[in-house]
Amino acid sequence: MKNQILLIILLGTLSFTTAAAQDKISSKKQAVLNSVEKHRNSLIQMSDSIWKYAETAMKEYQSAEILANYAEQNGFKVERGVAEIPTAFVASYGSGSPIIGILGEYDALPGLSQQAEPRKAPLEASAAGHGCGHNMFGPGSLGAAIAIKERIETGDLKGTVRFYGTPAEEDLAGKVYMARAGLFDDLDVCLDWHPDYKNKAGTQSSQAVTDYTVSFKGKSAHAAADPWNGRSALDAAEFFTTGINALREHVKPTVRMHYVYSKAGDVPNVIPEEAAVWIWIRDSKRSGVAEVSERMKEIAAGAALMAGVEHKVSLNNGLYEILVNERGAKVLQKNMELVGPITYTDEERAFADTIMESYGLPSQGLHGDIKELEPHKELQGGGSTDVGDVSYIVPEISLLATTAPYNAPWHSWVVVACGGMSIGHKGMIFAAKSLGLTMVDLFENAGLRKEIREEFLRRKGNETWEAMLPAGPPPVPAVTN
Amino acid sequence: MKNQILLIILLGTLSFTTAAAQDKISSKKQAVLNSVEKHRNSLIQMSDSIWKYAETAMKEYQSAEILANYAEQNGFKVERGVAEIPTAFVASYGSGSPIIGILGEYDALPGLSQQAEPRKAPLEASAAGHGCGHNMFGPGSLGAAIAIKERIETGDLKGTVRFYGTPAEEDLAGKVYMARAGLFDDLDVCLDWHPDYKNKAGTQSSQAVTDYTVSFKGKSAHAAADPWNGRSALDAAEFFTTGINALREHVKPTVRMHYVYSKAGDVPNVIPEEAAVWIWIRDSKRSGVAEVSERMKEIAAGAALMAGVEHKVSLNNGLYEILVNERGAKVLQKNMELVGPITYTDEERAFADTIMESYGLPSQGLHGDIKELEPHKELQGGGSTDVGDVSYIVPEISLLATTAPYNAPWHSWVVVACGGMSIGHKGMIFAAKSLGLTMVDLFENAGLRKEIREEFLRRKGNETWEAMLPAGPPPVPAVTN
Amino acid sequence: MKNQILLIILLGTLSFTTAAAQDKISSKKQAVLNSVEKHRNSLIQMSDSIWKYAETAMKEYQSAEILANYAEQNGFKVERGVAEIPTAFVASYGSGSPIIGILGEYDALPGLSQQAEPRKAPLEASAAGHGCGHNMFGPGSLGAAIAIKERIETGDLKGTVRFYGTPAEEDLAGKVYMARAGLFDDLDVCLDWHPDYKNKAGTQSSQAVTDYTVSFKGKSAHAAADPWNGRSALDAAEFFTTGINALREHVKPTVRMHYVYSKAGDVPNVIPEEAAVWIWIRDSKRSGVAEVSERMKEIAAGAALMAGVEHKVSLNNGLYEILVNERGAKVLQKNMELVGPITYTDEERAFADTIMESYGLPSQGLHGDIKELEPHKELQGGGSTDVGDVSYIVPEISLLATTAPYNAPWHSWVVVACGGMSIGHKGMIFAAKSLGLTMVDLFENAGLRKEIREEFLRRKGNETWEAMLPAGPPPVPAVTN
Amino acid sequence: MKNQILLIILLGTLSFTTAAAQDKISSKKQAVLNSVEKHRNSLIQMSDSIWKYAETAMKEYQSAEILANYAEQNGFKVERGVAEIPTAFVASYGSGSPIIGILGEYDALPGLSQQAEPRKAPLEASAAGHGCGHNMFGPGSLGAAIAIKERIETGDLKGTVRFYGTPAEEDLAGKVYMARAGLFDDLDVCLDWHPDYKNKAGTQSSQAVTDYTVSFKGKSAHAAADPWNGRSALDAAEFFTTGINALREHVKPTVRMHYVYSKAGDVPNVIPEEAAVWIWIRDSKRSGVAEVSERMKEIAAGAALMAGVEHKVSLNNGLYEILVNERGAKVLQKNMELVGPITYTDEERAFADTIMESYGLPSQGLHGDIKELEPHKELQGGGSTDVGDVSYIVPEISLLATTAPYNAPWHSWVVVACGGMSIGHKGMIFAAKSLGLTMVDLFENAGLRKEIREEFLRRKGNETWEAMLPAGPPPVPAVTN
Repeated sequence: MKNQILLIILLGTLSFTTAAAQDKISSKKQAVLNSVEKHRNSLIQMSDSIWKYAETAMKEYQSAEILANYAEQNGFKVERGVAEIPTAFVASYGSGSPIIGILGEYDALPGLSQQAEPRKAPLEASAAGHGCGHNMFGPGSLGAAIAIKERIETGDLKGTVRFYGTPAEEDLAGKVYMARAGLFDDLDVCLDWHPDYKNKAGTQSSQAVTDYTVSFKGKSAHAAADPWNGRSALDAAEFFTTGINALREHVKPTVRMHYVYSKAGDVPNVIPEEAAVWIWIRDSKRSGVAEVSERMKEIAAGAALMAGVEHKVSLNNGLYEILVNERGAKVLQKNMELVGPITYTDEERAFADTIMESYGLPSQGLHGDIKELEPHKELQGGGSTDVGDVSYIVPEISLLATTAPYNAPWHSWVVVACGGMSIGHKGMIFAAKSLGLTMVDLFENAGLRKEIREEFLRRKGNETWEAMLPAGPPPVPAVTN
Repeated sequence: MKNQILLIILLGTLSFTTAAAQDKISSKKQAVLNSVEKHRNSLIQMSDSIWKYAETAMKEYQSAEILANYAEQNGFKVERGVAEIPTAFVASYGSGSPIIGILGEYDALPGLSQQAEPRKAPLEASAAGHGCGHNMFGPGSLGAAIAIKERIETGDLKGTVRFYGTPAEEDLAGKVYMARAGLFDDLDVCLDWHPDYKNKAGTQSSQAVTDYTVSFKGKSAHAAADPWNGRSALDAAEFFTTGINALREHVKPTVRMHYVYSKAGDVPNVIPEEAAVWIWIRDSKRSGVAEVSERMKEIAAGAALMAGVEHKVSLNNGLYEILVNERGAKVLQKNMELVGPITYTDEERAFADTIMESYGLPSQGLHGDIKELEPHKELQGGGSTDVGDVSYIVPEISLLATTAPYNAPWHSWVVVACGGMSIGHKGMIFAAKSLGLTMVDLFENAGLRKEIREEFLRRKGNETWEAMLPAGPPPVPAVTN
Repeated sequence: MKNQILLIILLGTLSFTTAAAQDKISSKKQAVLNSVEKHRNSLIQMSDSIWKYAETAMKEYQSAEILANYAEQNGFKVERGVAEIPTAFVASYGSGSPIIGILGEYDALPGLSQQAEPRKAPLEASAAGHGCGHNMFGPGSLGAAIAIKERIETGDLKGTVRFYGTPAEEDLAGKVYMARAGLFDDLDVCLDWHPDYKNKAGTQSSQAVTDYTVSFKGKSAHAAADPWNGRSALDAAEFFTTGINALREHVKPTVRMHYVYSKAGDVPNVIPEEAAVWIWIRDSKRSGVAEVSERMKEIAAGAALMAGVEHKVSLNNGLYEILVNERGAKVLQKNMELVGPITYTDEERAFADTIMESYGLPSQGLHGDIKELEPHKELQGGGSTDVGDVSYIVPEISLLATTAPYNAPWHSWVVVACGGMSIGHKGMIFAAKSLGLTMVDLFENAGLRKEIREEFLRRKGNETWEAMLPAGPPPVPAVTN
Repeated sequence: MKNQILLIILLGTLSFTTAAAQDKISSKKQAVLNSVEKHRNSLIQMSDSIWKYAETAMKEYQSAEILANYAEQNGFKVERGVAEIPTAFVASYGSGSPIIGILGEYDALPGLSQQAEPRKAPLEASAAGHGCGHNMFGPGSLGAAIAIKERIETGDLKGTVRFYGTPAEEDLAGKVYMARAGLFDDLDVCLDWHPDYKNKAGTQSSQAVTDYTVSFKGKSAHAAADPWNGRSALDAAEFFTTGINALREHVKPTVRMHYVYSKAGDVPNVIPEEAAVWIWIRDSKRSGVAEVSERMKEIAAGAALMAGVEHKVSLNNGLYEILVNERGAKVLQKNMELVGPITYTDEERAFADTIMESYGLPSQGLHGDIKELEPHKELQGGGSTDVGDVSYIVPEISLLATTAPYNAPWHSWVVVACGGMSIGHKGMIFAAKSLGLTMVDLFENAGLRKEIREEFLRRKGNETWEAMLPAGPPPVPAVTN
């Protein structure tokens, strides 16, 4: 293990030297790269620890603590339990303007436990695993924040750097609670990155989404003896989904609606008194989601009326689409190129080939190169993130960094395995460096910050941000030992 | 034709003689039987004329006129066009109490035109035909009424006899309009009969029914270009029927609901702006129909809400179930036995066998015997009649008389054919005589009338009669030449 | 407690004396009544123990053992674990013909735990309870069997008496597995009783039922990213129920179909790969169930085809309707009258009033009288029992005995409470005596047995019995401590 | 009227002169422009005649004849009744290569009759009208063909020019039958134009579509008496649409599916024996349509199985998407610019304002300018045309020409009115000239033809064209006088 890490360090240094050669690099930026290298081992150790903890949404106690502690050890002032979420925290350093933030996620996905092996092999049966690579997300971002802190400390840069420990991205919309608490309000710019199978500056949006539970309450009766005395809540749920399916004809092609029954009767011989449908509504724009949600509510009301039962539509949470910032992406792209592509060993390449084959997909190799900057296009794909909400409050710059083989299936054990070994580590260090360099520009260049904000305001237009959350505190699960 | 009629007269006389032998028959009843025989040829001629006219609901101009004229010729005072229906009339004779009524129908069914032949052979392609035997219904009842009129004329009986020319039984609920106009209100007892494949005193009820049109109005749009701008009325109609089908679990086993789409879109590339479902709801009791109808209306409202369209529930009409009168049926039974069974010639029997075989059913012969009086039972079968409404206003005594082979398919050309020849004629004469004799008892026996009314009141209970009709005049079709 | 029991004994004796006075009672029958009285306390103690064990289907280890032990102590030869069910047993005494059987159930219902108090008060939260009174069923029947055994022992009667310990009536169809194993094949007649709110000889049938799981298997996909690559098993399940609901129009009024979704998706953003519907189909006749089941299978196949998924219809189990035996019921009625009505104390009557009021229903008192023998009628109500299968193999005589207030809601805590105190005990003793006396007639009277069998054969007609079970052993749950 | 036409001629000449000034125009092209001007009055008279005939699909007898005659009078060889369609014809002139075709449509739309007035005013109530402007389509294209014919005649150009009289575009897929007959097989390039509210070279595709009728056949029964003996075809139709609506989740966003019920029951009291759904399936690609159609067929089969009925899926016809040709569009654009923008009089502008206001839309003026050439993009909009099939056989160049106010509602009386007066006429002449000039380039420039064909082959790829038609002759309606 040790030897391997040494090799990685050497390779990392090599690639950085190569990158530096491509372009003239300022001394401040050089210092940032050096700083990330200095913390490299610690960042990797934190990533591997969080990978093993594999804690799911709002239960990331150990994961949050390891990051918060490291920030404190490095001189940050840490506020824990922000926004009424025990595993959310904010680590700050410096004072005054500008204030540049960076996000760090660390929640795992249920059921994806896996060893750092190129074959399906759970660490612990039915346990959670980092199938979205969030174990690297937190440490990588913290690495960049610390590098900047060190520049502020030396007086190279002026202002405030803030690391946000943002739990519960996969479920429960952690950042939206943090946003509702106003934690992002005073930022000039915010950065984030995400594990991926390519290195790329983010210029594409995500889908806005709302997550509802539609509940129906009828009247039970013996289904064989006197079904006419019952009012079936399950009938209402079925009418509701019938309505949703017909509605599909009457929504724009960018809309997605999907549901499951979360309650659908206990035993056949009782007319179901209760039933519930769990439904998500997505669109490329929050306004589109809002419009379709109104129709959904009418469908719920109509379904209840048809079945002669009561109903209730409960908002679980909602996420905004990402407001892309092309100006920011351009700066990021330049800095990614300064860092230079990731290089891999033969062992890593073999690991990538083996794991893809073992999953049943053709291996397309590891893409360590830096993809070209792509113009923003109308959203085609699907997927949502609570980064969208942050991007509606403050200009957001997003990076994708390679931590898995090209076209690896996301939310799978493949991503877990690669995130627990050197392929993942390298992507994380690449991210830390690229974001660190980008922050140098943001701190130094007020004109750049202005251009970024202007684009932000233009894209936001008249849309205002409002947390799509139910009233009351976040749904923090009770701790069970 | 003439010879045949002669034969029938002889046979008729014969059967009557046989019947008279079974029981002592009073001189007044004997006079009634004689009277029917006297009018026999005229009754048959009227039946055959109406059979040829084959006029459908509310268009029975010639059929009504031939009956009204014959009543007038026989000294009845005729009021035509009652209840705002041109083809409805009331023919009265006598004065004072008791007032005994008898109903006569004469509307045909669309598309059943047929010759009096034992093989499918339309008189006129796609024309109407008397597939329910109503051509015999009017003349048969009028025959009984005239026989009674002659007894009142002689002073044998005292009171008033009334023949009701009741159009539009098959469709449009003619008697309900007549009932709404109060035409049955002052009757002591009312009688009716219906062609059938057996001779039987009626002790079983019919289904109450309501007939609705549920219309939806949405917003059209190009189904390929911008379906999201449309609101589909057809979606709403489909939701509505989905709701009705699920409701089937939550209604009593006596309920029947059935529908068709009367409007369901014009061309696929236009989101349908209009749609309509035509639905009938039945139960063994009107109260059951009313209860289910309320649920149906909620389903219509819910379906409209689900589709985002407007809706309207229009009552076309509704019929009550028959309030059976077992006391009345018992009197009728006795008088049927006085009249005695119908006898058939070999030719008639052969005709019956041939026609059933030609239709594709096993022949079960002609049942001229008088079936035993059956106790009233909870309704099992299905079918509705506007006689039900009359039976809620005045005690009703109902007779079934054989005019077709046993188990003949009703509303078919088989019934048309038999109703246009001697098999039908015999049943009609049997009905005229049985009802005439029964009326003698009703006129003479105040105690009997009291018992009949007591049963009527007991069965009616707290239920009140109210016409289930839309506001406004009856839906008399415009006359087209 | 003791005093109370003493009072009950005295009252019991009193009622028996009164009954005896109504009719001449044979010495053998008198001996049977005495025998039940002798075992009264033990029977009650067993009933109360089973009531406390409250063990659910196929887990009735203690309940079965207490009964099996008592049978053994009383000289029966006991075979435990019959039909591969650990809690099923057969206890026999005597030899040769006739062989008369009697059934004893002892399984409880989940979630109905309740103290013997007239107010809702669980013994143990969410535990099971005897909401169907089966705690009394086993001991009551065993009491009758022991009384007969004592007559065989003395030589008063000749032949074999058999007590069947029949587990899992509420769920899992215990008797059908026992029937499949041939355990009832050599019986001449079989008897059973069931707790109720009236004393009545059974002349009405139950519903035949089949219990199926319909499973669908599709292909999962990301519901936002590429739903077109998914095939939704949930769509298929919804199509299936749509088909079932429409089918309701096309089945006879005696049919009942009811379902719940046992699997209906996990999270909205994944197209559900698996879904399942749990459905029961009932009719007044097994042949009706079979016919509708065929349509159900076509609907399942059609739904799968529509959704582009695979499907599987798995039979869980099925029950026959009860073949009524009116001849047997007549004998039973006579013997119930010999035993005489149950009398209640003021305290018991107050308990009954209080408990009904507490449940929210009007009290209609305790009906200790013996209801008149009712003729067999076509089934109106709903409900099924695995006694139906036994009744297809051997003539079955069934008794209902009062163990709860009139019109008490069955499968509720009201029934649990009354079954755990003197109201229940009295009903059980009444049942033991009535069945014991009836068995005396069955043993003694070969002609009676012949008449009973003739009716059995007539009602059975051409229908043959075949266990409606999946292949393989009974679904005995794994023991968890 | 005459004066007005004179004015138009002057204005037309004026605009052409202006256009000529913009660019150097070859003498051959100048001759083509002159030729169109020479035939101007005749072309307008033909357009107005066809506008008045307003004949619908496959019934365009007079419309086809007026065009065929004019072609013959101008020296074309005309073959009438091609592809077994009486109103289809091909008019040819010249010989040898290249062979350049041009399409002319002339069918009207039902129910859109309208005068050439800016307010809704039918020429004849419920009659057809040219709501898609096809009255101008045929004469405009013929004008271009004649201008080329005159150049071949003089020896300026070499090869063959062919005018295709293509009936039944709005319905019944006329060109697909002509394509199936091989009539387009030997063309080098084909041209067409379409009335619009802007002048634009076509670079966007249309939707591929298939048009099916899905029929179900069950078994009728009396819906109240014995619905269990019926098998409802309407149930099946409803299952089918339920399946289609659920399928919407599982098709790509480019897919459109829309349906109406073409048969949905006659009267409620009969279980419907027959039902039918008329459904169109569209996608941006024919392969997408084919894929979804397979799922649709499975849904039809599944629905039939669910309802226990028979089914049949009948293809009515299908259309391919347009294979865009950007090289061809570029040439067309250049020639449109040579012709120059359309200019309007104050009266015409006032007419446009009035008619839009009268329809209830804001007036956006008449756009006589030539829109910029747009790059080909993935299809967003909706709509299909049988030009798509031609474009799969031969490279197709398409023009849109302004004949109505900007954003006028298509398939409305607004388009009818404008197509019957000078606004429409000007667009038609613009089209004739632009297409004529483009054909000059196509005849002269073999290299251009090669480039156009290379793009055609590249876009077509491995897809082969096959007529999506039922077997047998075209559905020519019987002639009724």
